[in-house]
Amino acid sequence: MNAFFNPKSIVVFGASNKPFSLGASVCRVIEYLKFPSPVYVVNSKGEDVHGYQGFTSLDQIPPENDPIDLAIILTPAQTLPKIIEACGQKGIKRAIIESAGFSEVGEEGEKLQKEMTMVAQKYDVRFLGPNCLGTLSLPNKFTCFFGITPEIYGDIFEKPGTISYIIQSGGVGSLIMDSFQSDVVNVNKMVSIGNKEDLDEADLIEYFNQDQTEVIGMYLESVKNGRRFFATAQKSKKPILVYKVGRTKAGSQAAKSHTAGLANNDRIFEAACKQAGVARLKSISELHSIPKMFTTMPLLQGKRIAIFTNSGAFGGISSDLLIEAGFEIPLLSDSIQKKLNKVGKVYNSKNPIDLGPTFSKDIFNEIFQILLSSDEIDGLLAVPNIWQPIIIEAVKDLVNLCQKYQKPAAIYIPAASEIIIKIRKESGLPSFETPEEAVRALAISYAYYLFKEKNNLN
Amino acid sequence: MNAFFNPKSIVVFGASNKPFSLGASVCRVIEYLKFPSPVYVVNSKGEDVHGYQGFTSLDQIPPENDPIDLAIILTPAQTLPKIIEACGQKGIKRAIIESAGFSEVGEEGEKLQKEMTMVAQKYDVRFLGPNCLGTLSLPNKFTCFFGITPEIYGDIFEKPGTISYIIQSGGVGSLIMDSFQSDVVNVNKMVSIGNKEDLDEADLIEYFNQDQTEVIGMYLESVKNGRRFFATAQKSKKPILVYKVGRTKAGSQAAKSHTAGLANNDRIFEAACKQAGVARLKSISELHSIPKMFTTMPLLQGKRIAIFTNSGAFGGISSDLLIEAGFEIPLLSDSIQKKLNKVGKVYNSKNPIDLGPTFSKDIFNEIFQILLSSDEIDGLLAVPNIWQPIIIEAVKDLVNLCQKYQKPAAIYIPAASEIIIKIRKESGLPSFETPEEAVRALAISYAYYLFKEKNNLN
Repeated sequence: MNAFFNPKSIVVFGASNKPFSLGASVCRVIEYLKFPSPVYVVNSKGEDVHGYQGFTSLDQIPPENDPIDLAIILTPAQTLPKIIEACGQKGIKRAIIESAGFSEVGEEGEKLQKEMTMVAQKYDVRFLGPNCLGTLSLPNKFTCFFGITPEIYGDIFEKPGTISYIIQSGGVGSLIMDSFQSDVVNVNKMVSIGNKEDLDEADLIEYFNQDQTEVIGMYLESVKNGRRFFATAQKSKKPILVYKVGRTKAGSQAAKSHTAGLANNDRIFEAACKQAGVARLKSISELHSIPKMFTTMPLLQGKRIAIFTNSGAFGGISSDLLIEAGFEIPLLSDSIQKKLNKVGKVYNSKNPIDLGPTFSKDIFNEIFQILLSSDEIDGLLAVPNIWQPIIIEAVKDLVNLCQKYQKPAAIYIPAASEIIIKIRKESGLPSFETPEEAVRALAISYAYYLFKEKNNLN
Repeated sequence: MNAFFNPKSIVVFGASNKPFSLGASVCRVIEYLKFPSPVYVVNSKGEDVHGYQGFTSLDQIPPENDPIDLAIILTPAQTLPKIIEACGQKGIKRAIIESAGFSEVGEEGEKLQKEMTMVAQKYDVRFLGPNCLGTLSLPNKFTCFFGITPEIYGDIFEKPGTISYIIQSGGVGSLIMDSFQSDVVNVNKMVSIGNKEDLDEADLIEYFNQDQTEVIGMYLESVKNGRRFFATAQKSKKPILVYKVGRTKAGSQAAKSHTAGLANNDRIFEAACKQAGVARLKSISELHSIPKMFTTMPLLQGKRIAIFTNSGAFGGISSDLLIEAGFEIPLLSDSIQKKLNKVGKVYNSKNPIDLGPTFSKDIFNEIFQILLSSDEIDGLLAVPNIWQPIIIEAVKDLVNLCQKYQKPAAIYIPAASEIIIKIRKESGLPSFETPEEAVRALAISYAYYLFKEKNNLN
């Protein structure tokens, strides 16, 4: 599977020098990223594209270059059976079929898809797609996503991260790529699976369990083989977050005409997610907002949350959200309250803990230590208003304290999203954009802890 | 009431040249905004503050300046009864009491608050507060909010809008002020009502029904007089959007220690909102995101929504959200579909309408016209992916078409919030930051239409 993300050699079908050639845009990105493996292109004129040598057919590529590791195919649907046949004969065992026009367009396409699959099976060619973007891998700077502008997305390759995505839509994929440019955690790998006629979400969960991935994010319009998907998910050693479209009949109809997924009964899906420890996301924005809770914080191991704020109203707002999500906001004991009041500047020490104006980083630090080290609470909802830059520094220390005490904090800075994003980008604070997001992150972390506990995985 | 927002003359109590004087920060903002009315300050030394003449007591201000229109008071709580007495004797009929230390801190404060109120009643002095920020009025560039940095907030005064806010928390007030710097609709007036011992939310709804306000946004921690509030709300000619904290016991406890509001039974509140046509918001971010649906679009007059997108996956995502919110996504008739297909570039004309790549503004325009002019749909959920700047122009035209056909469109650009905010700021497009927000806006618009219909207000 790794060769789909880091191929030792590549042949691109459907790259030409015509305007709007999708294949050419793939070549352009590969060239821009200076991907070191050899790349060949096959087109009717045999012309070179973006400096990569062109051939009129696969057999023209000299056999000393065999075996070619990966074929990337962007030619019209009806050419696929023949191209796969040629690949098989040339000994190519892997293909990314980006071409559309298969089961997502109806019966004719469905037939063509089956025909192509039979050829692939004959030669043991494994493939991603059809109707997909293929793979993106930050650590080794490779992608075959078409249509992306390297000047825009180029810099994400400079900071690979530990989230990997399995995405059944190019549009959602690029939305996520946009989003993690303004968040603190970065992507490791991303794969667009399209109609997933051969390799599917389960294969990719298995693969991401073997690399440096820490969290798996998924956007699904359908599940190919529910039983296998959930069995694989349940065995996953890494948390899986899924946004699934098609919760309603209308949604699944719309999804069906987009990629070729069958509608699944949503209640069954929901129940199976719970059993397999899969977190079901409520919005596509959670695909980029929630993972940082797993990559920057320990798991939440209990229900008892302390709210910390230096901005009165947000104590009440957060309390509502926590209680609605099933958490407890315990009244702190006299001894903890005494400790908190000794630190000074604390308006309210009961919980929510309300801090008055202070310029001292030490005061924040002491309060965080008292709370995290206490056996009365399991986690923190920190709602610091950034009156001064010193508060950013204090909250950065909180992130370290959370590791020390093995209790998480969900951080929400009560400001306009534009401001939160700016602070987050500059400081690296894993802060959420709304109090709802922060509470959701706590809830998802806790549910995953409970799942692991139940299955003796902790 | 207008004098609270545009006083002809002002006296500030509690402004001095000591560091961190909240009163001085009020004077500084008034001066920065070049508010034209005379301002006097009263402090123990009788010193001038930010160029405004100082006096040791109210009687020292020469009587030829009487009557002073408004007193703004930031002195310690226990001084209030005497200051209100002095105001009464000087003929001052309005006060904004920003000082804290009243019913929000407990029994002692409660007593002081009652004592002060009796004095005010004796002299017929009406007041906002205590424990509040007072007023902000963009059209005449006035505010007595303390602690705001004019350099940061100064430019919001340059573009007054039509949303007015009634806010029971300074922190939430400043969050909203931050937020509308990155949204398309601007604020008209904002009032922080604090403990609302005298003037309350109902008085302000009445006032905002008489000025240029188009939508009223509220953040409430409590309701002083439920019966009067809902009676006033029901009579309001302008939509009212409320976020109320204290939905849970823990939330209302936290709110209680912040400003002095009593906990209210949330279910009763919910039911009363429905009856009075008040939209209950689900998050504080909706306080800035939803109003643009009312200021830029006609009301939604039916359930039938067409989804327009040029990015496949979002048809499914939007369908789920619309159906879950109780909307219908009707299959378009053959005749409409024929018209749509004639325009060209349409992948799917059934609904969701899925447009292929196009560089033509006319194609967008024709599709929007076909949809909005049809009697098969009541409104549009437009999900344009901005591949090219031309699409921004096309969607700008949509806003005008919505007025022409008197049907609304909720616009969501599927991109990272950072990008949406940038496009929105530059183009003025009333676009939402998530598909959930866009669907909520449609739902709130429709609920308000139904309320007006039921009460013969349309």
